[in-house]
Amino acid sequence: MAKKVAKKPEKKDKKRKQPPPALRELLRIPEADAVDLSSYDSRATPGGPKDKATALAATTRLAEHLTGAQERLYASSTAGDTRRILLVLQGMDTSGKGGTVKHVIGHLNPAGCRVRAFKTPTPEERRHPFLWRVRRALPDSGEIGIFDRSHYEDVLVARVRELVPRRDLGRRYGQINRFEQGLVDGGVTIVKVFLHIGYEEQRARLLARLDNPDKHWKFSPSDIDDRALWPDYQEAYELALHRCSSAAAPWYLVPADRKWYRNWAISTLLLEHLEALDPRYPQAGFDVEEARQRLLAMP
Amino acid sequence: MAKKVAKKPEKKDKKRKQPPPALRELLRIPEADAVDLSSYDSRATPGGPKDKATALAATTRLAEHLTGAQERLYASSTAGDTRRILLVLQGMDTSGKGGTVKHVIGHLNPAGCRVRAFKTPTPEERRHPFLWRVRRALPDSGEIGIFDRSHYEDVLVARVRELVPRRDLGRRYGQINRFEQGLVDGGVTIVKVFLHIGYEEQRARLLARLDNPDKHWKFSPSDIDDRALWPDYQEAYELALHRCSSAAAPWYLVPADRKWYRNWAISTLLLEHLEALDPRYPQAGFDVEEARQRLLAMP
Repeated sequence: MAKKVAKKPEKKDKKRKQPPPALRELLRIPEADAVDLSSYDSRATPGGPKDKATALAATTRLAEHLTGAQERLYASSTAGDTRRILLVLQGMDTSGKGGTVKHVIGHLNPAGCRVRAFKTPTPEERRHPFLWRVRRALPDSGEIGIFDRSHYEDVLVARVRELVPRRDLGRRYGQINRFEQGLVDGGVTIVKVFLHIGYEEQRARLLARLDNPDKHWKFSPSDIDDRALWPDYQEAYELALHRCSSAAAPWYLVPADRKWYRNWAISTLLLEHLEALDPRYPQAGFDVEEARQRLLAMP
Repeated sequence: MAKKVAKKPEKKDKKRKQPPPALRELLRIPEADAVDLSSYDSRATPGGPKDKATALAATTRLAEHLTGAQERLYASSTAGDTRRILLVLQGMDTSGKGGTVKHVIGHLNPAGCRVRAFKTPTPEERRHPFLWRVRRALPDSGEIGIFDRSHYEDVLVARVRELVPRRDLGRRYGQINRFEQGLVDGGVTIVKVFLHIGYEEQRARLLARLDNPDKHWKFSPSDIDDRALWPDYQEAYELALHRCSSAAAPWYLVPADRKWYRNWAISTLLLEHLEALDPRYPQAGFDVEEARQRLLAMP
């Protein structure tokens, strides 16, 4: 089933250049299958360049294509195109959500990006349904929205830390799917990325933060408490990836132990989705020659 | 008066390296003086590098310092520091507001930037006082906010196109000053930049947009109507720069005919203001060694 749905938007890409297969085919969490994260190698580089140097060069080239496509998407919105992109980044502490924003989104034109980091809900946010704060942070037409954490925290930390009754939690998966389906119907292309980091890699990264006083602000002892709950979080992720990898908004699993692969893969995923939208510069809605003559005739 | 106020925050910079004088001293619109825009050369490069190549290299170096200072400002906010920056970009069509966002802000970490372009007010925005939409777009603690156009449109286009009664308009300058004073009191450093472009340079840039179909979306025949009102706009700017160049939030005039100078100057202005804030990485609020031991002791 998943395959049939996936192939449709790829047709155009396939025609242009046969292999390699789209990265989103490789990384997509198959719809309806249960997810076993231990079966995915966090150091793997599926479909990726063969080494770091090649990946860095490729990512720089991708950035150029991304900014081009981003500008066309933005330009198209000025002529009434309401399409937009929403990149959702999820993953354990140190999995590279912030690094992705800095190194991938950092290449784009900030005028067309709307970045939002979701932290522990504020008292005001807690007074509202869990999707309330998410709705307020959505990208406008022509924009690329980036969520560093998202509404998925409400089935991840909320589940592990038992912040809501189990029955309410169970309902949230369906609420999320309907919410995302509504976004897709409204012209939002949702790219949900799970940054899959290994248990030992996380230890190394947390230790590196402790070793550098300039990184202490990124660290909190609660990060260790969360790490102690690693199996519970993995299970919560498995459930979220399984229950919310819909045809409308599939999850992509990006192995994230190697930062160069992570940046290359997310750049590629973004570009594949942008190219599938194929945004175009709008035609002039005015008489170009007349405008030129008016300009030249001015004193 | 203006001088005394201006010198205070510069003291630290001056100690470090004597000349050249801070760019913000050079570009600041003197408080209380009437402004005559025709006395400013839009092709000038005050305080700037001697040529384009030197400027591009210098701007790249500035970007590194900017991202460093930006990260320290952001990090500091995680420890309760509520300071933030607001860059306000104003100028005639094609003066380079969008180009500044792309080429200067594009170097920063998008996670700490909040970019907002103010267009013709929507029906909802029109139902509110003119500062309403501005208040909703302000940067949070630790962020750098960027306004592409701003509340100043409400004394610029509003004046030239007579969108409000003259008496209401007259009150707005004071409202703006009080609004900005309140922001400054709340920890916002406001950097207001007027991009000063020449009449002939604007013609060339508008013609270039017409010559390139990929740029037609940036053009509207109403740009020519506005251009026909050039003297009225210059006068409206002179008034706004004069009446709202306060000690708390002065205006800076950046000659903008040369893009390389514009990017260098705004990078420099931003960095000077960030360095005056001198944000620091916060000290760890936890026992680093204990955290390290806990991490190492985990299975």
